[in-house]
Order: sequence, then structure tokens, then C-alpha cells
Amino acid sequence: MKTIGFIGLGIMGKPMARNLLKAGYSLVVYDLIPGPMEELAKLGAARAESPQEVAQKTSYLITMLPNSPEVKQVILGPNGVIEGAAPGSTVIDMSSISPVASKEVGNALEGKGIKFLDAPVSGGEPGAINATLSIMVGGALAVFEDCRDLLSAMGKSVVRVGDVGSGNVTKLANQIIVALNIAAMSEALVLGTKAGVDPALIYNAIRGGLAGSNVLEAKAMRVMQGNFEPGFKIDLHVKDLNNAVEAARAVGAPLFLTGQVLEILKCLQVEGKGGKDHSAILQFYERLAAVEVRKTED
Amino acid sequence: MKTIGFIGLGIMGKPMARNLLKAGYSLVVYDLIPGPMEELAKLGAARAESPQEVAQKTSYLITMLPNSPEVKQVILGPNGVIEGAAPGSTVIDMSSISPVASKEVGNALEGKGIKFLDAPVSGGEPGAINATLSIMVGGALAVFEDCRDLLSAMGKSVVRVGDVGSGNVTKLANQIIVALNIAAMSEALVLGTKAGVDPALIYNAIRGGLAGSNVLEAKAMRVMQGNFEPGFKIDLHVKDLNNAVEAARAVGAPLFLTGQVLEILKCLQVEGKGGKDHSAILQFYERLAAVEVRKTED
Repeated sequence: MKTIGFIGLGIMGKPMARNLLKAGYSLVVYDLIPGPMEELAKLGAARAESPQEVAQKTSYLITMLPNSPEVKQVILGPNGVIEGAAPGSTVIDMSSISPVASKEVGNALEGKGIKFLDAPVSGGEPGAINATLSIMVGGALAVFEDCRDLLSAMGKSVVRVGDVGSGNVTKLANQIIVALNIAAMSEALVLGTKAGVDPALIYNAIRGGLAGSNVLEAKAMRVMQGNFEPGFKIDLHVKDLNNAVEAARAVGAPLFLTGQVLEILKCLQVEGKGGKDHSAILQFYERLAAVEVRKTED
Repeated sequence: MKTIGFIGLGIMGKPMARNLLKAGYSLVVYDLIPGPMEELAKLGAARAESPQEVAQKTSYLITMLPNSPEVKQVILGPNGVIEGAAPGSTVIDMSSISPVASKEVGNALEGKGIKFLDAPVSGGEPGAINATLSIMVGGALAVFEDCRDLLSAMGKSVVRVGDVGSGNVTKLANQIIVALNIAAMSEALVLGTKAGVDPALIYNAIRGGLAGSNVLEAKAMRVMQGNFEPGFKIDLHVKDLNNAVEAARAVGAPLFLTGQVLEILKCLQVEGKGGKDHSAILQFYERLAAVEVRKTED
């Protein structure tokens, strides 16, 4: 089995790296924080002192980092991956970042003869732990085919959607729809509640028709119980929608409604709710309407 | 079996009345246009000369009309239902109208001892023809129970959601979510296409996750094939969202995003696209981005 480099052992990265070990891959890992590296070392991973060293020791290298600046720093910065990786080796960035940044990183690596895929995921921490992530991959077909088995050790769905950057474009399309579908649910349920109708009856009446959605199924009953624990944090959704707006400006696509829901999410951040589930978009509407969306019948 | 009055024999009303005849009810019908009345007369319905006369001849009366002004005119206006209906009789308005108007009509009828339900439907013309409508009912529980069999002859789901007006509040909640979910799909697919990713691959990558929805399943492939035939017309969605905004103002609920998608729909009306399917919201975004969302792979 190949030896894989893995940089970024956070909430997502650590369980993903663990699944690679389980699947029989050898790992060389790096993170700024020693704790997660030690955990993985106990499971058999080798530790490196820098991204450069990880790249020197492996020909397939995965990064799982918070956002575009961290990815650029770790791959293109001093002591970065690009300083250690040999021509012909492959870098897979699985972070959710701006597709503009993905292309920048991909072009820089290509200039050194290093292959690159952007492969962001959805499915969150449970998906990372259970190896059931959906992985959206952008990059050359041959590179994708070469990495398919490796990626399949971390996810249940591994789909190529186009060239470098396409993975993150697809992830952003996903995040746009999710945010707006939550806002749609919020406007509908707050209007209904404020008009005196039990929101649980509205939910039951409409969920089977054209208004039905996975957002409604995942979130409606939870918010009616006042449960806004993540799930997916507002802070992360703000990051993704900022990237969506950046990508939209870069290509000339209008995101009228996404821009507004981003503003709502940022308002919630300012109130200290960045750590709440993104379904707390509802709370923005609740406060303005001075009403609480709570089911009144069981 | 009861004799039922039926006023409003349009695209929805005519097949609904036909289903009542099929279920064994006798009908007295009225419409401004003679053609549909003659069709139903051939199937055994009696014709009346005015809403008042329909009300004089029946103790259960259904209205299925375009919007709030027509409902108020037919029920409360000169030669209207209220001038013919006996105390103790029941009026069911199945039109999709403003819940503010529903309450006004209900209160006026209650003043004469006439019972009232607002019972708008979803499911469109196919649902009306096949008696598979979803019927959302507002009104007193006893009146609802008394009319449940009658309503079941026209729909597969008959649900009481609260007092008078609640049926239309629920319908509007449905229409808010549908419009915004279409806009969400549009922003995502136009961004993706403009960024050079095949929208069909985006759809396939995200439909199984939290972004999945009945709108995506019903509309995404259609719009990628350039098919904007209704379905549900923009003109009707504008009507519904105007009513949603009216209802929201009446109770003090904010509809930021709904207000914007209403503006988009009105722009499309101005361009002569009022008769297109509401998924033509996508075309508003396509034009601004100067791109067409077409799938490139099969």
C-alpha cells in the first residue's frame, strides 16, 4: 500500500486520517497542534516537522485545512508542500475553500510537475468518522482515477465533477442551496406561527409536496423543539458563502439571495451565535417577528 | 347523498366538480362562462343563474375562484352566496387567496349563522383531475369533520391546520418555500455553469445530501433541458406571493427573501413570461450571468 501524507488533523482531518490507517495505508502526518499527531502516531502514523517534510516522504499528500489562506500557506508557503514534493507526485486538497484559490494552487503545483485535485467533502464530522463522506472532485480524469481508491477509504460517494476548482464550485452550489432552503423554511414557519398556525401542522401538511426537502426533514422538527446545537456551524457556513460570493464575482454570476442570507448569518455571528447550527437563521426571523416557532401539538 | 353547490368551473374547479359527481353527489353549478356549466350539465349537474341561487338550492357550497377579490364578490357581493344561504349551511372556499380575505369572508358569514372553511389545495390540474389534491383546511373542528368525506372526494390528503384562514396560511408557507427553493437552485446552477462545471454533474453530486429537495428532483433536469412549460405558472406564483406579503404585513412577519423572489417573478411577467413555469426564475439569473444552464453530458 502507498504511503500517504496527511496535513491538518482537525475535527474532520483526524478521523479521515484514521480511516486511511484502517484501510491499510501508511501515513506521515503533520499539524500545528501536537495532540492529534500524537494520537495518530499511537495508531502507527509517522510524524513530520513541516509540510515540506511530509511532501519529501510521500508521493500522495492530502490537506484538510480551515480555508483558502491556510491551504495556500501550507502548500505554497515557506517550508510548504511545494518545496518538498517531487515532480509526478499528487496533492489532494480536501478542504472547503474558494475555487479561485484551488485553481491558483493547482497552477502553481502544475508548474513544478506536481498533480493536484480539489476534493472537498460534505457529510460533516459523522461522515468523516464513519467514512461516509460525499467527495466532490475536480481535476484531470487520469489523476482522479489514480486516486479513486484512496478517496474511497474516506467516503461513500466519490464523484469527479470537472477540472481543478470544480470540486469546490460544486461544494459551494451545495452550500448556497442549503442556506437558502433554511431561510425559506424560516420565512414560511415564522409567517405561519405569527399568523397563529401550529408550525408542526404546517410542516406535516407541506412536507410531502413540492415544498418538501432534506433541509425540512433534517431541521424543521429540531428548530420547533428549540434545538440549535450543531450540526453545521454558522461560522463555517459564513466561510463557505464568503467563498461563494468571491467565486461568483470572479466569474460574473449573481447571488442576490445568497448575499442576503450571508448577511443574516453574519448578523447572527455578531450576536455570538457563530457556534450555533445554521438553522439558527430562523432565530433572526423570530426576533424580528417577536414570535417563537414552537410546535404546540405532539 | 347531499346536494353540493359548486361555483367556479375553471382549470381546477371543473375536474373537482366532476369528481364530486363521480362520487355520487348531486351538484348545482355556476360560472360566469356558460361552456363549463354545459359540460357539467351533460354529466347531470343542475345549472343556476347566480351564486345566490346556488346557495338557495344547497346547504353545502364550494367556491373555486382565482383570487381574493373574486371570492369576496361571489360570496359577499350582490346576488352573492350570502344573500341565498340559509343559517346552518356551510360554505367551503377552496381558492388560494389571502388568509386576511378568508377571515373577512368567514366573519361575514358567521354573522349570518353560516359556517365557513378555507380549504386551498396543492397538486395542480393533475391533482384536480385525479382527485389526488392535498387539501389544507382552516375552520372549526366540527365543521371540518362534517365536510371531511365531501373533501375526500377531491383529494388524497385532507388535513385540518387550524381555524379559518389557517388553510391559506399553510398554502402560502408552501408557496414561499417552493419559490425560494427554485431561486436557490437557480443561484447554485448558474454559478456552477458560469464557473465551467456541468450543472448535471452538480445536480448528481448534491441531490442526495442536505441540498436535496423535491424542487431539485422536479425541476433541475427539466430546466437543464430548456423546458419551462408549466407546471405552475409564474402568474399564479405572483398572485400567491402577493398574498403572502399581504398576510405577512397584517401579522408583522418579515419576508425578506420572498419579497426579492417576488420581484424576480414580476420582472419575468413584464417580459411576457407569466405563462411559463415558475422554474423560469432560472432565466432571470441566466440572462444576468449571460450563460445557459444546459447539461453537457447524458
